Amino acid sequence: MHKDELLELHEEMVEIKETFSGYEGVDASVFEPYEELDIDPSHVHKSKSEHKHAVFVLGNALAVAMSEDEFSNAGRISKRMEELADDAGGKL
Amino acid sequence: MHKDELLELHEEMVEIKETFSGYEGVDASVFEPYEELDIDPSHVHKSKSEHKHAVFVLGNALAVAMSEDEFSNAGRISKRMEELADDAGGKL
Amino acid sequence: MHKDELLELHEEMVEIKETFSGYEGVDASVFEPYEELDIDPSHVHKSKSEHKHAVFVLGNALAVAMSEDEFSNAGRISKRMEELADDAGGKL
Amino acid sequence: MHKDELLELHEEMVEIKETFSGYEGVDASVFEPYEELDIDPSHVHKSKSEHKHAVFVLGNALAVAMSEDEFSNAGRISKRMEELADDAGGKL
Repeated sequence: MHKDELLELHEEMVEIKETFSGYEGVDASVFEPYEELDIDPSHVHKSKSEHKHAVFVLGNALAVAMSEDEFSNAGRISKRMEELADDAGGKL
Repeated sequence: MHKDELLELHEEMVEIKETFSGYEGVDASVFEPYEELDIDPSHVHKSKSEHKHAVFVLGNALAVAMSEDEFSNAGRISKRMEELADDAGGKL
Repeated sequence: MHKDELLELHEEMVEIKETFSGYEGVDASVFEPYEELDIDPSHVHKSKSEHKHAVFVLGNALAVAMSEDEFSNAGRISKRMEELADDAGGKL
Repeated sequence: MHKDELLELHEEMVEIKETFSGYEGVDASVFEPYEELDIDPSHVHKSKSEHKHAVFVLGNALAVAMSEDEFSNAGRISKRMEELADDAGGKL
């Protein structure tokens, strides 16, 4: 990858971070490791490796966000199924 | 997240996949696990969980792609440093 | 990290890969990217960076395996809930 | 996977976390998301999904740790190469 390509990827991933963080009820704290890097797609003088690192952290954060949502969801569904089963048991 | 929000994230991540895959000399095979899911942002009747899975796989693939690039890069730099050191050793 | 520390981590992660792959009904194909690296904890002459890469790939593969299991599980639970709801609907 | 299998994987991954965290000069903060889960392999009454989540977070944290080490390493090598080049330039 050329540097301008990495800057473009970085830019697009920051847009996704913003799209995601704008949703209601999501845990935007998954992007804290990115904020700690203190790098921005406009920092053209930072190295390719630093921008690559930023894209790594952003991609990983998004994957973790999806996974967290699914695991917490599983917990909720499992509780609701038990309640439903209890409820159905009572009625049948 | 609502379903339309997941479809939007999925759509944006597919654009990033295409941006990345269009670059020269990159290993687009990191996205094979996504292709194997056989899901598309236009599949509005698939479940939220399936689209969330797709976004997970795309985010992880991008992170892996950056990491692969960095690790293979490290190998190249390390070899070139040795050559440079040998070369410098000969000249000094 | 020193090289012997990386070799130790690599060794322990290979044991986890084997523990996981020995279970019934799991998708051991998540470890294919590791097999493709063609590296082993006994390859003491390979670089630190290569062993670090191996540990990265193993850790990521295990995370992906857990995530795949959860996402496919969610699909199954969601189908069973619908069946249960239909079934309960018929009986009530 | 059966629950006892997940508990075994969880146990083995905690051992790896301890191996890693015992090394000098490593950034053990990558395991903070695991500590926040407040789950332990001995918590046999927690759900399969919760233990699976724990293994996911541990595997991902280890992968992130390796990646962080490599990216920061790349920064150091790149700086040293420049210094070496300057130094060599002065002597030649």
